[in-house]
Amino acid sequence: MSSTSLQFTDRSAHRAWLATQAALPAGFRVGTTRFDFTPREAPKPAKMTLTLIVLDEPSPDFAAMFTKNAMPGAPVLVGRRRLDGPALAAIVVNNKISNVCAPGGVEASERICAETARLLGFGAQQILPSSTGVIGWGLPVEAMTAALPAAVAALAGGSIMPAAEGIVTTDLYPKVRRAAVGAGSIVGIAKGAGMIEPNLATMLVYILTDLSVPRTALRAMLARAMDVSFNIISVDSDTSTSDTVTAISSGRVPCPDLAAFERGLQQVCRDLAEDVVRNGEGVRHVIRVAVRSAADAPQARALGKAIVNAPLFKCAVAGNDPNVGRLVQAIGKHVGAQAPGTDLSRLRVRMGGIEIFAEGVFQLDPAKETALVAHLKAAELYASAPPKDGVFTAPIDYPPHERCVEIDVELGQGQAAATVLGGDLTHEYVSENADYRS
Amino acid sequence: MSSTSLQFTDRSAHRAWLATQAALPAGFRVGTTRFDFTPREAPKPAKMTLTLIVLDEPSPDFAAMFTKNAMPGAPVLVGRRRLDGPALAAIVVNNKISNVCAPGGVEASERICAETARLLGFGAQQILPSSTGVIGWGLPVEAMTAALPAAVAALAGGSIMPAAEGIVTTDLYPKVRRAAVGAGSIVGIAKGAGMIEPNLATMLVYILTDLSVPRTALRAMLARAMDVSFNIISVDSDTSTSDTVTAISSGRVPCPDLAAFERGLQQVCRDLAEDVVRNGEGVRHVIRVAVRSAADAPQARALGKAIVNAPLFKCAVAGNDPNVGRLVQAIGKHVGAQAPGTDLSRLRVRMGGIEIFAEGVFQLDPAKETALVAHLKAAELYASAPPKDGVFTAPIDYPPHERCVEIDVELGQGQAAATVLGGDLTHEYVSENADYRS
Repeated sequence: MSSTSLQFTDRSAHRAWLATQAALPAGFRVGTTRFDFTPREAPKPAKMTLTLIVLDEPSPDFAAMFTKNAMPGAPVLVGRRRLDGPALAAIVVNNKISNVCAPGGVEASERICAETARLLGFGAQQILPSSTGVIGWGLPVEAMTAALPAAVAALAGGSIMPAAEGIVTTDLYPKVRRAAVGAGSIVGIAKGAGMIEPNLATMLVYILTDLSVPRTALRAMLARAMDVSFNIISVDSDTSTSDTVTAISSGRVPCPDLAAFERGLQQVCRDLAEDVVRNGEGVRHVIRVAVRSAADAPQARALGKAIVNAPLFKCAVAGNDPNVGRLVQAIGKHVGAQAPGTDLSRLRVRMGGIEIFAEGVFQLDPAKETALVAHLKAAELYASAPPKDGVFTAPIDYPPHERCVEIDVELGQGQAAATVLGGDLTHEYVSENADYRS
Repeated sequence: MSSTSLQFTDRSAHRAWLATQAALPAGFRVGTTRFDFTPREAPKPAKMTLTLIVLDEPSPDFAAMFTKNAMPGAPVLVGRRRLDGPALAAIVVNNKISNVCAPGGVEASERICAETARLLGFGAQQILPSSTGVIGWGLPVEAMTAALPAAVAALAGGSIMPAAEGIVTTDLYPKVRRAAVGAGSIVGIAKGAGMIEPNLATMLVYILTDLSVPRTALRAMLARAMDVSFNIISVDSDTSTSDTVTAISSGRVPCPDLAAFERGLQQVCRDLAEDVVRNGEGVRHVIRVAVRSAADAPQARALGKAIVNAPLFKCAVAGNDPNVGRLVQAIGKHVGAQAPGTDLSRLRVRMGGIEIFAEGVFQLDPAKETALVAHLKAAELYASAPPKDGVFTAPIDYPPHERCVEIDVELGQGQAAATVLGGDLTHEYVSENADYRS
């Protein structure tokens, strides 16, 4: 899926490569600040980072996609209003508190926008707010407005890295991807680990370009890009109340070819989506499921999601255990529940290129078992480190490689296909999410 | 949900109570045997237990419900055929290998039935086969037929305990529940941890009664009992390829009152279903979700399932963390995906009787946080024992109490309701399922 096939031996090698991706497109500046505050719902001190992404001039050419969760956060409600506005000038992002269904949440987001606009000399309606973190708590508006001038003072062009690092929370590492198109570029950053809503994280994606692409075209292309990137990943099946993907053009560089721009946009989205899974909470194996010869694309995608979300199969992958019975169980559960009566007699399943199911029965032997174990081990990102006080934490903060556990499912129903990415289910995931918010 | 509210301080107290449940209804005998064999797919030695449940005389009055998984096991395929037969005389159960989609699986099951019938003097069509264990491997038919005479020799009346213990695999303890109706009784045993398909387990339930209930009535009552028992539980959302619930009447005792029989049957099913969750793999908290004022019962049940299957909420419960934002996230994800546009303005959510969400916003404060933590801790079955070599195992083999994490969701849509039971997501679950099959 990734257009690259990267390997890194340590954090500094990864950071050096990120720097090659991070040049800001013309017309943008970013700045961040970090400060202490005390949440009102559970009074113990916490830290928050504010990140600003600012256009030199307000631009009419922006696009945004938001979560489908029926309990969306206040920034999502405000962001949907902004889509109808004439132009966008800046994005203000906070972590630690997601501002979802908190009393007075929309008013709090609007106050942050108004103060950001005042400091930058724009209109409040030109500011898009984003928040990620604990659901249910309210934004510390006073502390945030007091901190905003420092973020404004930090604004600088050149590199998107301060923003890429400012928005991360439980992420293992920052995520930056770029594509060059003609004389311009598309640069995206992401935080979070996919559809999950972990302790302090959510998926937020910001894609900046200096290529001039009209609003209508940009929105249509961003919507299409979702179906081959963020809509086909799942870390743990939970859908955040705050997921947001935004694309903004500063319009500084003429776009030579809209089709080339769309290819670049899709590449950046696909690469970031895979990054989000690969650094997902507790993910030790990325699982890529290609479903083929399905009746239609939604069916193919739903089956792929069912496989990467099946807890027992995810646990087996975590243990480098080719327990392919659990994989077929997941297929059978999904088809039995969603499309009972489907003829599965032409079902063929491969893992790592090795046929494990065909002609209605498993195709297993000890030699295949050995080869499947080798495939799983090769896709492992890291081995569990011994837990400290029972808590498992990832021993890496960079992606050592881009290999996946490769699953290939032929349904024998039709011509449609879809590829889905997910992760395994590990002690690191439980440790990350069964401990107290803090 | 349970008609009882039991507490046990240790294994021997629990076993003593089980003995009070275990008297076999008239007309039944049980017997087991255990033996070594080598699977052909991954040749290392393994142990299998064969369990026989035998009627003194074949009975026309039996019922069975099977998994809806689209890749059902061979015993399920054979069992569906048996439903049309005139009578049932015995059930033969093996663990370790589930005989799902293995080459020649149906023939293997039929050979076991034929040999069991020959030894018992019945017809092969009167024998119901059941298998649980690894999916994909084939039954060791020769080793099983060699072991069958020992199981026949062990047949005895009096207590169902040998069968209750013979069918368990990864279960923490055997599960037996009974109801008295007139001069007769209904006695059920269960193995497994619900909808899950773990390493070596599946849900198998056998309900025996000496009360004379005609086949048609028995089948209708068993189907209705599913909707208030096994169909409303989920440990990890995986649906086994082998789930089977069977009820058999020996007809030895006149049934004084069919309504009383149905109440007793539902009580036994509800109690066993809760037992299955409470001893579920890695379950340290049972979560009971009551959904009320829903538009219809399927909607209520689906929402309850969505809550108990939400990984991040399950992890929060495991950590005694009242992260109720994750609970509302799960409601929002489900409604957003299944019924977008639903008016959630009347949503009210309580945990442990404490209101946490109403009037569109969270209702949180530090005092409630403290009370919610206390509720979660009171429902904990056991604290994690320090892992040995990174592997977490449950330190108990009995249910210390029957308390639940109590979630109450009012949708404000209509008159329908449903109660769903699930478990948390723990290191013990990952340890159980991320290790090698062995």
